[in-house]
Amino acid sequence: MSTKNAEYYEIQQCSIQWKAFLKAFSVEFASKGDVKDLRAFMHQLGRTMASEFSIGDGSSLFALEAGINKVWLQLNWGWVEIIEEVDSLILAHHASPLKVAFGPEALSWSPALLEGIYAQWFDGLGMDKTLRLSQRDTILEDGQLFVYELKKQVEEPSYFTRR
Amino acid sequence: MSTKNAEYYEIQQCSIQWKAFLKAFSVEFASKGDVKDLRAFMHQLGRTMASEFSIGDGSSLFALEAGINKVWLQLNWGWVEIIEEVDSLILAHHASPLKVAFGPEALSWSPALLEGIYAQWFDGLGMDKTLRLSQRDTILEDGQLFVYELKKQVEEPSYFTRR
Amino acid sequence: MSTKNAEYYEIQQCSIQWKAFLKAFSVEFASKGDVKDLRAFMHQLGRTMASEFSIGDGSSLFALEAGINKVWLQLNWGWVEIIEEVDSLILAHHASPLKVAFGPEALSWSPALLEGIYAQWFDGLGMDKTLRLSQRDTILEDGQLFVYELKKQVEEPSYFTRR
Amino acid sequence: MSTKNAEYYEIQQCSIQWKAFLKAFSVEFASKGDVKDLRAFMHQLGRTMASEFSIGDGSSLFALEAGINKVWLQLNWGWVEIIEEVDSLILAHHASPLKVAFGPEALSWSPALLEGIYAQWFDGLGMDKTLRLSQRDTILEDGQLFVYELKKQVEEPSYFTRR
Repeated sequence: MSTKNAEYYEIQQCSIQWKAFLKAFSVEFASKGDVKDLRAFMHQLGRTMASEFSIGDGSSLFALEAGINKVWLQLNWGWVEIIEEVDSLILAHHASPLKVAFGPEALSWSPALLEGIYAQWFDGLGMDKTLRLSQRDTILEDGQLFVYELKKQVEEPSYFTRR
Repeated sequence: MSTKNAEYYEIQQCSIQWKAFLKAFSVEFASKGDVKDLRAFMHQLGRTMASEFSIGDGSSLFALEAGINKVWLQLNWGWVEIIEEVDSLILAHHASPLKVAFGPEALSWSPALLEGIYAQWFDGLGMDKTLRLSQRDTILEDGQLFVYELKKQVEEPSYFTRR
Repeated sequence: MSTKNAEYYEIQQCSIQWKAFLKAFSVEFASKGDVKDLRAFMHQLGRTMASEFSIGDGSSLFALEAGINKVWLQLNWGWVEIIEEVDSLILAHHASPLKVAFGPEALSWSPALLEGIYAQWFDGLGMDKTLRLSQRDTILEDGQLFVYELKKQVEEPSYFTRR
Repeated sequence: MSTKNAEYYEIQQCSIQWKAFLKAFSVEFASKGDVKDLRAFMHQLGRTMASEFSIGDGSSLFALEAGINKVWLQLNWGWVEIIEEVDSLILAHHASPLKVAFGPEALSWSPALLEGIYAQWFDGLGMDKTLRLSQRDTILEDGQLFVYELKKQVEEPSYFTRR
């Protein structure tokens, strides 16, 4: 697909009803805190949003991916690929409207919304408490691909257990 | 129109792409401050949003109403009636998606968004600085009608000018 | 709801992407035949459309109404009430976009589209072959309510069975 | 852009409200005539549609392209590039929803809709009567690019003028 078509589709994807509101929200919100705070708020928003949707039982990775994509398709929020790796599960989220909605300058914090949504959904599936879902640093494909990974959290040895 | 049709249309008006996000935003945001703070933030958001749109030159009230409604129609944010009263200008905003987007429980603060938008637009028209646009307290027609008025701000006599 | 709000919502309901196409279709199509032909084509279109959707098993009237309304809500085509009468089943379809899409002048034939859809869905449920679904003549609530009824087709006594 | 993103955006572009109707229309309509008839009807539909929109004065090719793209953007029907060639004007229409709306199998006739729209708009601009707008045979970029050209119609020499 040509770059101009890609841009056209990206821009049109975000509902015109809320585009200006979301852009204004992004500007005002970004002025209120640092990236860490913004991410924490977006993550929490995501967790709250997640509870509005049912993604099915996640009886298999295939069923889980299908259940999640049914939600994303209905919202027009793109689509996810779930990839199993040796010690983690990768969620590659494509074609989300976040870049257009919140602006390219918000890409350091806006994807924490999806992080919160996925984290909440995986918690709801009764995920092992030692697992943690977090976004990988790199933004790929010019803001069209965000990668999240679910893996065992490596605990820093605490002061007392360290010797 | 039957109540059920009215409810149907109200619910469908709000873009499904952002409905769950806006609802979650409303919940999280409302937990962060009191009504006065929430209104101030929404008012500011409205002012920032306003600058995205051109409402024409406002050469007459009729032209102004038409220019504003062109924006609202495109966004599917309802429609406004501008009514001239003896000492004020009334903006009656009908059929906005705010109640469905932010929830009925947010009606004490969500309409400050429109207040900010209108205030910014009137400032942009070079409005007399002694005029002030503010929302009237009453929410009418079950959250389908918000009323704003633009009038000369009555200054409380200050301590020093009082005798 | 005020008349002006009702009009606003009706107009906005029909997707702007296809509104002009559908209006042009209505004008050109109406010039090609009489009402009976137009209704037959729309009915057939409806039957073809119906097969795109699953309305569930219709295990009860309540389940059937819910299954159908799930489709209508997703398409933003209004909502249906199913009412059981002594010798027929009534389908009252509210808030459809047909009047705005095809124009008020097409109301004599455009609702045959819904007739075809419902007829196909009921056929798919294994409905008794002597039953027939057809639209009642009256258009109600200014094009916002169409009524269909499913009832045993009364056969005109034929020449030979008559005495 | 990845193929899967391209497919995702193409599919989502077509309004869900009318997608099933348009698909059914395409199936039923295609069964009624040969490609020539279908193109003639679509061309006529396009001419009727065109009159719903104002594309400005076409005072320059640049203004014309901008005026047309304003309409396409609002409808989410893609975008056009106007290219001046020695003896013709080329209209390259990208990212239209026609393939998804009417189906890939309708690509032999569905683009006649745009042909009719452009023909009507150019007529409205007071175009030289010897010019004729028609679609070039080739469908490019997998149904994402249709090319129309406006050029002087070469008249076949008739029997009597031939020597």
